[in-house]
Amino acid sequence: LLPTQVIQDVVPQARVGVLTGPSFAADIAVGKPTALTLAMADADEEAIQALLSTSALRIYLSDDMIGAQLGGALKNVIAIAAGIVIGAGLGDSARAALMTRALAEMIRYAQKQGGRSETLFGLSGFGDLVLTCTSSQSRNFRHGAAFGEGIKTDENVTVEGVTTAHAVVEAMRTSASESRAEEDLPLTFMVSSLLKNEISLEAATDALLARPLRRE
Amino acid sequence: LLPTQVIQDVVPQARVGVLTGPSFAADIAVGKPTALTLAMADADEEAIQALLSTSALRIYLSDDMIGAQLGGALKNVIAIAAGIVIGAGLGDSARAALMTRALAEMIRYAQKQGGRSETLFGLSGFGDLVLTCTSSQSRNFRHGAAFGEGIKTDENVTVEGVTTAHAVVEAMRTSASESRAEEDLPLTFMVSSLLKNEISLEAATDALLARPLRRE
Repeated sequence: LLPTQVIQDVVPQARVGVLTGPSFAADIAVGKPTALTLAMADADEEAIQALLSTSALRIYLSDDMIGAQLGGALKNVIAIAAGIVIGAGLGDSARAALMTRALAEMIRYAQKQGGRSETLFGLSGFGDLVLTCTSSQSRNFRHGAAFGEGIKTDENVTVEGVTTAHAVVEAMRTSASESRAEEDLPLTFMVSSLLKNEISLEAATDALLARPLRRE
Repeated sequence: LLPTQVIQDVVPQARVGVLTGPSFAADIAVGKPTALTLAMADADEEAIQALLSTSALRIYLSDDMIGAQLGGALKNVIAIAAGIVIGAGLGDSARAALMTRALAEMIRYAQKQGGRSETLFGLSGFGDLVLTCTSSQSRNFRHGAAFGEGIKTDENVTVEGVTTAHAVVEAMRTSASESRAEEDLPLTFMVSSLLKNEISLEAATDALLARPLRRE
C-alpha cells in the first residue's frame, strides 16, 4: 500500500494529499526557488495550493496521487544505481544513459499501478529523479556511491531506496510471471540483487552492456 | 535548416544519419560505458549500428532525424539556463524544476518541426539534457554559470547554445504570432534576452516565479 492508501484505510474520513517533488528542506528553509507537486482530489485543493505557496515555493496541482507517490519512491532506487555508477567510476555519460532508461522503467511500473505517465514526466518524476541522481545532498545517491567505491556504509542511516527496491521485487515475486517483471524492471531488480550481494558489480555492468542492440 | 537538411540540399544523393546523445569524447576515448542514438532511415542502418557499436559504446536506432537533432541543439540552450541558475546560487532544486519545464518546452518545439516526443524522452533528449545541465564538462553549462556569477566570459570559445537560442527566437519572430511563440518557449526566449542584456537576471527570475499557480 502507498502512504495515502494506508491513511484512507485507517482513517476513511481523512482528506489526503501528497506534497512531493524535487526539493531539499535546507533549500526551502533559506527561500531558494523550489517547485513541487501537490497531488490530491479535494474540493478545496486550490485554496490549499494558495495557502502552501510562497513567492519562492511554487506548488502545482495534480490529481494523480498514485503516480506522484510512486515517482517519489522509485526515484530513490534509481539514485542508488546512479550513485553506484559514479562511485564505480563509470562516468557521467553512463549515469545519463541509466537515468534515461530508468524513467521509462518508472513509467511502466507506475502505469501498471494506476498512475499516469504525465505525472512521471513532471516534477514528481523526472524533476525529482534528476535532483536525487545528481546531488550528493541525497542520502540514496551517497549510499550508492559508497557501495560503488566498495566502502561499507553506516546501516543506521535511513536510505529509503533500499527498502523500496526490495519491496518492489518482493511484490513482483508474488505476482504471476516473475521473469516478465524482471524484464520490465531490470534496474530495480538489479539494485535489489546488488544490495543483497546476490550479484557482483562487474556482473551487473556486463549484463546491462550485453543487452541486444535494438531500436530506441 | 538542420544539418541533415543542409546535406540533403547540397548533396541529394548522400545517405545521411545523426549520431547524438549523452556523451563526452573524453569518456568514450577511455572506454567508459556510453549509449547514443543513431537516427537515420537507411536500408543498411542495422549494419551501421553494429559497425559503430563496441562492448562499451551502445548505439540505439531511431528514424527520427529531426527530433534527434533538435534534442541535441535545444538542450544546449537549457544548459546555459541551468548554469545561470547554479551560478546565481539559486540551488539544485531550482535547476531540477527548470529542467522539468525545459523538457516540455523542447518537446513542444520539436513536435512543431516534425520531430516525435518519444525521441525527446530518450537518449538524445532527456539523456543529453541531464548530462549537459549537470556536468561542468559542458561548455554551455560553464558559460551559463559564469554569466550567473556575473563574470565576463571568453567570447572565443564555441558555445553552441548561444547561437541556437538566438536562431530559435529569430525563426519564431518571422512566424505569424510571436506572443504565442514566446508563451510556448519561455525559457529559450529568456536565455536569448538575458544573453543580449535585454533583461536583468533579477527580472528573469521574478518573471519565472510570478507565473500563475496552476495544474501541472
